[in-house]
Amino acid sequence: MTDSIKQQRHQARQQRLKTQVDAAVAAATTEKGLLLVITGNGKGKSTSGFGTVARAVGHGLSAAVVQFIKGSWDCGERNLLSQHGVQFAVMATGFTWDTQDKAADMAAAEHVWQQAEQFLSDAAIDLVLLDELTYMVSYHYLELERVERALINRPAGQHVVITGRACHRRLIELADTVSEVQNLKHAFDNGIKAQRGIDW
Amino acid sequence: MTDSIKQQRHQARQQRLKTQVDAAVAAATTEKGLLLVITGNGKGKSTSGFGTVARAVGHGLSAAVVQFIKGSWDCGERNLLSQHGVQFAVMATGFTWDTQDKAADMAAAEHVWQQAEQFLSDAAIDLVLLDELTYMVSYHYLELERVERALINRPAGQHVVITGRACHRRLIELADTVSEVQNLKHAFDNGIKAQRGIDW
Repeated sequence: MTDSIKQQRHQARQQRLKTQVDAAVAAATTEKGLLLVITGNGKGKSTSGFGTVARAVGHGLSAAVVQFIKGSWDCGERNLLSQHGVQFAVMATGFTWDTQDKAADMAAAEHVWQQAEQFLSDAAIDLVLLDELTYMVSYHYLELERVERALINRPAGQHVVITGRACHRRLIELADTVSEVQNLKHAFDNGIKAQRGIDW
Repeated sequence: MTDSIKQQRHQARQQRLKTQVDAAVAAATTEKGLLLVITGNGKGKSTSGFGTVARAVGHGLSAAVVQFIKGSWDCGERNLLSQHGVQFAVMATGFTWDTQDKAADMAAAEHVWQQAEQFLSDAAIDLVLLDELTYMVSYHYLELERVERALINRPAGQHVVITGRACHRRLIELADTVSEVQNLKHAFDNGIKAQRGIDW
């Protein structure tokens, strides 16, 4: 096959692809506030949420972040994004097995959720990241119905990203886009410790 | 079951979990530059890569980003992160089916890859994001062996994140951590258009 024929075939193949993509893009005409869920056991869920915040803020949108679970840790994303007007609400406890006090964890969850509800009712906020919210629902620290209600009643143009393992199926049903991050391999399993800048 | 027994059981369960986690953390003692691969068809790969950059930069680490494929688009992450000293190398063409000129695409890939090689040989850079690199390998725009060589020979402490669909299995073998983002649901499939701040 000569180079010229190869190039023609490449162009034909790419043209077919482009036609398909253009048709799909033309068919997608609705704009609305999206609910994105990023769940699964693999690494990259929270970073994806924070990457979305960085993307939005880089376009001049306003964003707020609620950090459940890992809130009290030193956090590179928070250090950076809070310099750009991103509001943070942070749960006062660390990983729940550090506190081992269910009542205190529930009170902390309740407190930070009230801040989440404020963000979810504020039309001036374009994007709300609910980082690691899923655990609050699966541990029964927060009532599922209450979370659903706040999501359904939020301002029409507001985007929300929920991260965390094992997202409840009813939140998945409510979502517009759902990604499941699977763990194919993890450095930690080979004795490599969690490292600043990569793991937190 | 009384509340006090419930609380005792909760504590016992959490204590077992904490013991397991603490043991795993104690066993993980190695620190080294990690190679992370985020692949799969779902939404959230690039944002996860950029979230990792935001995290690293927020801890005062230095980072560089190479954007293949989507380089020439307006990009919220780039707007934001370039304000924090993150270096960007951007491929000059858009999506490859827009150009439909394989020779021009290959020249653009070659050009930006040379910048990637510079980042990957610079010990002053703590983290390099190779956003959407996988397509360069699967389209044969870049030689796999050359990519492997640059990754293997990089400075010992340097972290690298590779994103994109269908990552070549040899890059997966080389990686320390691999996540596969699966698409459970996507707003685009329901006629919702790509939106600024969320999709780019």
